[in-house]
Amino acid sequence: MKNNQTLYLKIAKIIEDQIHKETLVLGDKLPSVRSAQKLYNVSLNTIKQAYLELESRSLIESRPKMGYYVSKSALRTTTLPTIASIDNHENKDTPEELIHKVYGTIDKSDITQFALGLPGKNFLPIAKLNKGIINAVRNRGDAGTPYEPVQGSENLRRAIAKWALVMEGKITEDDLVITSGAMHAMYNALMAVTSPGDSVAVESPAYFGILQAIKALGLKAVEIPTHPLHGLDLDALKKVLPEIKACCFITNFNNPMGFQMPDENKRELVKLITQYNVPLIEDDIYGNLYFGSERPKPCKFYDEAGLVLWIGSVSKTLAPGYRVGWIAPGKFKDKIIRQKLVQTVCNSSLFSDVISDFLEHGRYDHHLRTFRNKLYTNYLQINRAVETYFPDNTKIAQPKGGFMLWLELDERISTTALHTTALSQKINFAPGRIFSQYNQYNNCMRLTYALEWNERVESDLGKLGRIIKNSI
Amino acid sequence: MKNNQTLYLKIAKIIEDQIHKETLVLGDKLPSVRSAQKLYNVSLNTIKQAYLELESRSLIESRPKMGYYVSKSALRTTTLPTIASIDNHENKDTPEELIHKVYGTIDKSDITQFALGLPGKNFLPIAKLNKGIINAVRNRGDAGTPYEPVQGSENLRRAIAKWALVMEGKITEDDLVITSGAMHAMYNALMAVTSPGDSVAVESPAYFGILQAIKALGLKAVEIPTHPLHGLDLDALKKVLPEIKACCFITNFNNPMGFQMPDENKRELVKLITQYNVPLIEDDIYGNLYFGSERPKPCKFYDEAGLVLWIGSVSKTLAPGYRVGWIAPGKFKDKIIRQKLVQTVCNSSLFSDVISDFLEHGRYDHHLRTFRNKLYTNYLQINRAVETYFPDNTKIAQPKGGFMLWLELDERISTTALHTTALSQKINFAPGRIFSQYNQYNNCMRLTYALEWNERVESDLGKLGRIIKNSI
Repeated sequence: MKNNQTLYLKIAKIIEDQIHKETLVLGDKLPSVRSAQKLYNVSLNTIKQAYLELESRSLIESRPKMGYYVSKSALRTTTLPTIASIDNHENKDTPEELIHKVYGTIDKSDITQFALGLPGKNFLPIAKLNKGIINAVRNRGDAGTPYEPVQGSENLRRAIAKWALVMEGKITEDDLVITSGAMHAMYNALMAVTSPGDSVAVESPAYFGILQAIKALGLKAVEIPTHPLHGLDLDALKKVLPEIKACCFITNFNNPMGFQMPDENKRELVKLITQYNVPLIEDDIYGNLYFGSERPKPCKFYDEAGLVLWIGSVSKTLAPGYRVGWIAPGKFKDKIIRQKLVQTVCNSSLFSDVISDFLEHGRYDHHLRTFRNKLYTNYLQINRAVETYFPDNTKIAQPKGGFMLWLELDERISTTALHTTALSQKINFAPGRIFSQYNQYNNCMRLTYALEWNERVESDLGKLGRIIKNSI
Repeated sequence: MKNNQTLYLKIAKIIEDQIHKETLVLGDKLPSVRSAQKLYNVSLNTIKQAYLELESRSLIESRPKMGYYVSKSALRTTTLPTIASIDNHENKDTPEELIHKVYGTIDKSDITQFALGLPGKNFLPIAKLNKGIINAVRNRGDAGTPYEPVQGSENLRRAIAKWALVMEGKITEDDLVITSGAMHAMYNALMAVTSPGDSVAVESPAYFGILQAIKALGLKAVEIPTHPLHGLDLDALKKVLPEIKACCFITNFNNPMGFQMPDENKRELVKLITQYNVPLIEDDIYGNLYFGSERPKPCKFYDEAGLVLWIGSVSKTLAPGYRVGWIAPGKFKDKIIRQKLVQTVCNSSLFSDVISDFLEHGRYDHHLRTFRNKLYTNYLQINRAVETYFPDNTKIAQPKGGFMLWLELDERISTTALHTTALSQKINFAPGRIFSQYNQYNNCMRLTYALEWNERVESDLGKLGRIIKNSI
């Protein structure tokens, strides 16, 4: 392992030197992983690690289905956002008012919404969903009036288990519980594995919804430093694990940073939590929105102790308003079902049918393919626009999927102040401050790019760039 | 007050004597409340109280829209179930396994379900709901995919406020929060007004779902003696109010006992909780299923301090599977909305439209009228069947609405044991034991009569009667 670690760094160094000496220049394609393996006579994994290392330093970039290229970032100032440190933050202060300000305007149609954590209507297969509802109404004959089993519709659970190829058959309908969206799964998972006063590890920056749920349940969030490309700092996590009652991470296409935790790290993470017997709540709602060639594995795939509670939903991909999510809660299944019984009793049977049908007949996969392509195009658009309109020292995260772009601006800038100005010009974004319980990420922002790309969007990003430039 | 109390008892005594001396005989109509007022030269309320007293002792019975009659019960052994006392119950033991046994078979169609707390499909306007869904799909144009506001669809809230004539304009759309069914409202109401370890007053017998929610939230239930005709014993409640953090009552057509708490008692209850500043969670989901001439007032109507959290839903009357409930949480509104945000985020927009539309166009009221008539007919049927097939010493509650009949059998009988025998003969009912956290109500049972009355039902009640008779 140690030897292997040195090896991948050596290979990364060789390639880095080639870039700096301009043996490899902007846009050059690197050898494929297989060719490089033969070239350096090492394992596939070593090459993958070497490329990942270079990618993490923005020297190379992966292009879906094409391979690795010398990156533009290697030659210019936009670099990756910095890693958060575990500071001795004393003043906890969840920014509820700021969150309220950002999301209070969310249904106003005259505002360009870079803040919304949901895909716009034009990304969703509305006509097919309409048809799906009408078919479900016709087939049921009871207008969806009966209760479902508390665990959720058996058809839907079977359809999810069958569709979740990424798990390679490791979950069945018995392992799943249907919930009223992913947040409901998250809330119940936290409830099932903690008691008030317990500490829960989260990424930093963290999705504010997770921080709010932790607070609402009387728990303490422990923010773990998180790398913008690899995710969670495992060494930092290891130090606090003995004090922690649960982990709560978004491992694939993280909200807000967009990273994909490498498989090696996932395996290592599962090993760690198993060793310390700490449940891991894995929010994997963006996992199918990959820009690469395949759906990344969740930590759940490596879980043998039943300690990973794996959460999915269709809210980010198909039908937010249907409130259909699910959880594979491992050994906490019975507890989750009992909790659901006294909370919401069951889900809506009609929507269970609509979603089962979408999953079973390949319509969901078909939609996801189209959706991913649109999102990747939009990512390229927003990345270009930020590079064009925003100050040169703007650090841009490199999402590997999903639809959120994390930016780190000049450290003199307060995005909370910017937000007020932007909102007065009908532009809404998520200021960095809401992604921590501490007073940090003040110079960061999250932009959603799951919106229809048009002149207004382009011009509003130009406006936003000017607002930023004027504020320094 | 004291004087008035003596007065109504005196009048009751006069009438009781007339019945015993057979001046008034079975089936005779008593003077109307107004005639009696003139006759005895007392207030309307005194007469009402006197009649209520006689009714509580089964000497007279009220017939919807017709008045009071000398009751059949006055002359036979079936009398009202007894009132629970506040005992020093030491061994708390919520009967989870028994509940699981009763509700584990709930989706099996070969079992006659006297246990289900829901109306059967034949009571619901399936065709109109189908049409409602298809209209909503057509009108929306977004297949119901967007999120609703956390507080709930404004249209739906407006429709509920407008439809809730019983509140005489005291609530508006701003006062309401939409929830995923009434249980979700209950859970959130309990969360909003208590902290773990707190005590919550409930009726006894109590709906087991409330007992489960109280337990799940780490609260303690304090069971208050409850009269089968008047509901809660206010004197008993008053004694424990200083120790109590919330009350949780089903005031209209109580589950399981079917009583309607008199208006005077509701007014008095609200006065009491206001005096002690204890929030009252009022589960009023059966309130529209009255057998009498009008919808009874909820306690919320008398609430001026914003201490009553009034819960409604369409799950017991129209569409259980839609998971549409609501709460008028008084001064706890903001807390409830914040809680909902981290739990389920929002409701399904499509069903909000379907239900708004049903409410707005009088379709819901039309359906309720039909539903009430069917339920009253079924009540008469089941009451007759129990009188016919069950042992003579069976005490039968006198529900004033809703669809549940509470029975108290010979005290040597264990309905938990009976349940096993009945289930083996494909008959399911709710044994009394599940309605308390203590080892009581073992000789009681709850029968739901919101099922299609047919030969099978009639013959199964006959079977049940024989099982009971054989068990003594």
